[in-house]
Amino acid sequence: MAKEITSREENYSQWYNDLVVKADLADNSAVRGCMVIKPYGFAIWEKIKDQLDKMFKDTGHVNAYFPLFIPKSFFSKEASHVEGFAKECAVVTHYRLKNDPNGKGIVVDEDAKLEEELIVRPTSETIIWNTYRNWIQSYRDLPILINQWANVVRWEMRTRLFLRTAEFLWQEGHTAHATQEEALEETMKMVNVYADFAEQYMAVPVLRGSKSANERFAGAIETYCIEALMQDGKALQSGTSHFLGQNFAKAFDVKFTSKEGVQEYVWATSWGVSTRLMGALIMAHSDDNGLVLPPKLAPIQVVIVPIYNKAEQLQLLTEHILPIKKQLEAKGITVKFDDRDNYKPGFKFAEHEMRGVPVRIAIGPRDLENKTVEIARRDTLEKKVYPVDQITDVVVNLLDEIQQNIFNKALKFREEHTYKTDSYEEFKEILDTKGGFILAHWDGTSETEDLIKEETKATIRCIPFDAPEEAGKCIRTGKPSNKRVVFARAY
Amino acid sequence: MAKEITSREENYSQWYNDLVVKADLADNSAVRGCMVIKPYGFAIWEKIKDQLDKMFKDTGHVNAYFPLFIPKSFFSKEASHVEGFAKECAVVTHYRLKNDPNGKGIVVDEDAKLEEELIVRPTSETIIWNTYRNWIQSYRDLPILINQWANVVRWEMRTRLFLRTAEFLWQEGHTAHATQEEALEETMKMVNVYADFAEQYMAVPVLRGSKSANERFAGAIETYCIEALMQDGKALQSGTSHFLGQNFAKAFDVKFTSKEGVQEYVWATSWGVSTRLMGALIMAHSDDNGLVLPPKLAPIQVVIVPIYNKAEQLQLLTEHILPIKKQLEAKGITVKFDDRDNYKPGFKFAEHEMRGVPVRIAIGPRDLENKTVEIARRDTLEKKVYPVDQITDVVVNLLDEIQQNIFNKALKFREEHTYKTDSYEEFKEILDTKGGFILAHWDGTSETEDLIKEETKATIRCIPFDAPEEAGKCIRTGKPSNKRVVFARAY
Repeated sequence: MAKEITSREENYSQWYNDLVVKADLADNSAVRGCMVIKPYGFAIWEKIKDQLDKMFKDTGHVNAYFPLFIPKSFFSKEASHVEGFAKECAVVTHYRLKNDPNGKGIVVDEDAKLEEELIVRPTSETIIWNTYRNWIQSYRDLPILINQWANVVRWEMRTRLFLRTAEFLWQEGHTAHATQEEALEETMKMVNVYADFAEQYMAVPVLRGSKSANERFAGAIETYCIEALMQDGKALQSGTSHFLGQNFAKAFDVKFTSKEGVQEYVWATSWGVSTRLMGALIMAHSDDNGLVLPPKLAPIQVVIVPIYNKAEQLQLLTEHILPIKKQLEAKGITVKFDDRDNYKPGFKFAEHEMRGVPVRIAIGPRDLENKTVEIARRDTLEKKVYPVDQITDVVVNLLDEIQQNIFNKALKFREEHTYKTDSYEEFKEILDTKGGFILAHWDGTSETEDLIKEETKATIRCIPFDAPEEAGKCIRTGKPSNKRVVFARAY
Repeated sequence: MAKEITSREENYSQWYNDLVVKADLADNSAVRGCMVIKPYGFAIWEKIKDQLDKMFKDTGHVNAYFPLFIPKSFFSKEASHVEGFAKECAVVTHYRLKNDPNGKGIVVDEDAKLEEELIVRPTSETIIWNTYRNWIQSYRDLPILINQWANVVRWEMRTRLFLRTAEFLWQEGHTAHATQEEALEETMKMVNVYADFAEQYMAVPVLRGSKSANERFAGAIETYCIEALMQDGKALQSGTSHFLGQNFAKAFDVKFTSKEGVQEYVWATSWGVSTRLMGALIMAHSDDNGLVLPPKLAPIQVVIVPIYNKAEQLQLLTEHILPIKKQLEAKGITVKFDDRDNYKPGFKFAEHEMRGVPVRIAIGPRDLENKTVEIARRDTLEKKVYPVDQITDVVVNLLDEIQQNIFNKALKFREEHTYKTDSYEEFKEILDTKGGFILAHWDGTSETEDLIKEETKATIRCIPFDAPEEAGKCIRTGKPSNKRVVFARAY
């Protein structure tokens, strides 16, 4: 089964596509650029969603739901938002179909043309701030800490499953505050929630920092982000948190009366992560045998495969395995007993490897005699025989160890692929030969960033929050710089 | 606060609208027919969703996600489906906007016209069965038991919050089976899941039965449903489960090789409930003071309101209340301590009443002295003083009692508003004066049902599964009938 996917070395991009399809995560659909998220892929997304939702609620947020459609005119209200957005999107122009007068199926009813076109939301700042105007009168109505789980559409020409699709699933937080300070605090709080989630649950180490003006969200004053490094040396932006200032409040006339009785514009943030995280999760850890999942996000954490020749043996093994399954489940572990009788163990092993199940337990008649089990871990592919009475402790520890190990491995990879250079020649060579994050000086202008992007395809991924002050010269222009920023080629 | 809503007697429909808005459940949006589900309303929907999701998973289903858009041509493939559907829907014709050449905002880019229009899904049978064709080859691939939580759009001219909106949230199960028998079993299983959920969680008694041909889902061979009775005597269809036969398999050419090696068409079901359930929940139990929620679906089950004049008193009360809160939370109860200092107790009482919090605990300085608390229940508005050391037991029992009581009340209401008649005159009189369910004989033809609908606005809500065999004559035509069916005016 593992042979069904291209190796990373041969073609990383093809490896990714093969893996997504063969591991039953997602599929292209009949609609250009839109994917079908298959049950196994969706089960991982549900785990991501549940954990993030809990973290949002623990930090005081509540969920709500706003319309899928946004009147076209709303997009023009915030000038920089419309410039950076809303151009490539799905436009609803009619609200009725009718039978084709020529008897050939159905056609659009031209009598049912909308007065104003509706845009399928590419992001919801505009419709939400238009709504907040009615909800906010006084400082008592603030803060509003709302999140929404939703589908959004951005018409992409070149799409890739999870990484870039026309429709994708995401969450978008939209908060309203009485002061700039509070809004900035919220922006930082949420990028840290994302970073904690990425590191502790996805086992993906991330850089935390600000975006340069070029890479900032359309309509934002400041964009914070987390950036992860994939195995091919390309960066993947995994979450963003925006300080929107009073831009949307001004565009939609959202004012409040302060404690002092003064009318002021409301301060805003928005922040989001999407099904793109699935792409990061897949690419960060997986290998040529298939998916490698962090135990905390694996829909099935342990699979038990019985090894037998005859039906009586399966019955005996089942009697032995069910109490083990129960015992593990009592520890909160998700266990699947793969007792399908139309597949051989070897096939099952390969399948569960492809799907990234962290721990596999194999039990055969000889194990019954010896009171042992064979335990294999997906991350290192190591197998070891244990006494059956140690199984719970071994598995509990092993799941923790795998979670930690794949994080460490990804961190080590990032450290080995993070370079510091002051030479533009070397900069280009690193990008072409090794990839990774490059810490380099930059003169702080958009023009220089554009130039570097044009010449090398690398962009500034972030200006790390913890970048030390360091006098230097811009790698491209030689102009003075006071800290290094992180460059990379990116997804 | 309670005065802010119209009474049921004065204007039931206005009462409903007032309640939805004043209880902070939902609001109309800037987009015609689309609602905003506010955080409190969404919290109830999340409870509904979580419980249903659990029930679906417990019956072997998994979640997945299919595209929002459906190519127009797909709808023409299943003849009866297109006839009953897909006419009033949102049509995407373009995929790009551009700056208005006259400098006035943005306009649709006519160069970006889609070759084939995309329909925003009104329901997903077509796109899903088109996908299943690639997933199903052999009997080993069956059954497929998939559910999807999604937004759908049906362009409604007259909309009402939750009950009928252009966009709404729902779940749609789409299952594929090797045999007719298994598909029929699934159809019945799911209508029973819906009924159990309605009765045990929403505390809404429902009739279970089949739809007449007129009311059947477009493309279904059989539609099962649950029907609830609202306080104004109108019925509300609360969930449907469809046996689709091989209709969609034939339309999308989905065949499998059976165990015997024969190519056969796959059997299908689909089933769904939507945010309409929120409407049923609101209308079934609430009163002129606001919402009445079943404890099992209440986002806040218990609110504790401190009664005090001076700030020191609040501090003392807080020290006393926090352990009580903890104690209740340890029993799995959701508790809110309403210590807002800018609102008076009377205001808070009215607000929590409006929002349907099942149990309210009030504690003042005198309670501290007497070691007592005052407990009020939302369903009957009764208040009673209890010793503070009994509080946990009292509240646990009270929540159960309220859940049971509002179910019993709704059941009693339904029983008192269920009539049996053999006279068409009486039939019409009941509809005009009392409303409710009417058990009457019917000759089994669509023509007669149409006629009755035209003359009385009543439709056949269902043919109950447990309707006894009984010879009689159709209430309208006098033709023979062998069982009574349920008529009502409906939402």
